[in-house]
Amino acid sequence: MTYCVGLLLNEGMVLLSDTRTNAGLDNIATYRKMFTFEVPGERVIVIMTAGSLSVTQTTIARLRDMNDSPDADPTTCILRAPTMLAVAEIVGSTLAAVRGEIQEKLSAMGQGASASMIVAGQRKGGGMRMFLIYPEGNFIEATEDTPFLQIGEHKYGKPILDRVVKPSTSLLDAQKAVLLSMDSTLRSNLSVGMPLDLAVIDKDALKVTAARRIEAGDPDFRAMSEAWSTALRDGFQKIEL
Amino acid sequence: MTYCVGLLLNEGMVLLSDTRTNAGLDNIATYRKMFTFEVPGERVIVIMTAGSLSVTQTTIARLRDMNDSPDADPTTCILRAPTMLAVAEIVGSTLAAVRGEIQEKLSAMGQGASASMIVAGQRKGGGMRMFLIYPEGNFIEATEDTPFLQIGEHKYGKPILDRVVKPSTSLLDAQKAVLLSMDSTLRSNLSVGMPLDLAVIDKDALKVTAARRIEAGDPDFRAMSEAWSTALRDGFQKIEL
Repeated sequence: MTYCVGLLLNEGMVLLSDTRTNAGLDNIATYRKMFTFEVPGERVIVIMTAGSLSVTQTTIARLRDMNDSPDADPTTCILRAPTMLAVAEIVGSTLAAVRGEIQEKLSAMGQGASASMIVAGQRKGGGMRMFLIYPEGNFIEATEDTPFLQIGEHKYGKPILDRVVKPSTSLLDAQKAVLLSMDSTLRSNLSVGMPLDLAVIDKDALKVTAARRIEAGDPDFRAMSEAWSTALRDGFQKIEL
Repeated sequence: MTYCVGLLLNEGMVLLSDTRTNAGLDNIATYRKMFTFEVPGERVIVIMTAGSLSVTQTTIARLRDMNDSPDADPTTCILRAPTMLAVAEIVGSTLAAVRGEIQEKLSAMGQGASASMIVAGQRKGGGMRMFLIYPEGNFIEATEDTPFLQIGEHKYGKPILDRVVKPSTSLLDAQKAVLLSMDSTLRSNLSVGMPLDLAVIDKDALKVTAARRIEAGDPDFRAMSEAWSTALRDGFQKIEL
């Protein structure tokens, strides 16, 4: 499984993904699920992926190929598309096409393959946008009312986001929120696993402002996780029934 | 959907269920999902149900019928079964039989019906036992390592249980824990809804010691929910990244 979460805030965007991929419980591997496409100063796009690895890898590879082809039609190239909405449409149609092809191969075996993605970015002259792309290629967008998007195992980590994330949340608090949301998910679902990839995109920076890989056993992450456990237990003790 | 949770602790058992039943989002109703079978001083059994209402109602009705028939075979009657393990087996086989019959009727329409149950109880001379009965009639039991069982929409409410519930947890703290676990679930899943049914069975009391229906707008529940939100936000603010 997977857990990826993205926050769209007034000050910028914060993205976090795990790296665990499994084909059955007895075949576990580490794969990056966060991919950056940048023309610093002109545009920044970060894509996070969940679902069948063959679908997500092929989709990302095709998106890269289209960028690398110098005479590509801008309507098929996320680094040259005129708007973030057009970027979301390109990712959506590429994902849907790849999924359809792989699905066809698998259908003979009675199996299925599916994937979803979060696309976050900003281009010069435009606003920050964040989209959740469904396996069929359609998408929804983060808004002021719901400033976060999740893919994969989203349930365990949602209560903390529901409670603390608002558009006005600072980027520092936002990083805490996504890390605690991930912490709850890691505790409850073995198929979500360390290391983690964290990225911050400041508003109008038009590049990834901060990117960090958090390895298993990272002392800061562990300290935060323990402080949160203690805070929850202390808070629990103080509540009167 | 549904959320039911049961805790098996050194001091007793605590059970909580919601009451929302829906056939599609546009057809929502309130049905009790917690059922008590008691011979005070001799045995107490509480059953909580999740899944297709036609399956759970028919199963509970058959269990009642078997109790009411004076010359019933003790091996089919949960109020006369010799052990709690035998009770779990009766509930399991009744559930599996009902599910099979209804499944057969629905299969013509390409539909399915399923249900699961939590069975908690104690009989004179025996220990407290708590079982999760699967739709096929097999079951698992709560243990010291995992002293709680959940059915229905279990994910949103699991992190708090994972963190605070141990066999040594007091019955008062246990009631707080299940109510906060339910509170997180109510916030995130509309198909779980008030009112709630809460039951406490003290160890060796051989009856339901306390039962309470918590209506929507219950001031105590609301105060606890708000206190927990505040505690979470305060705890969150204090954590350093």
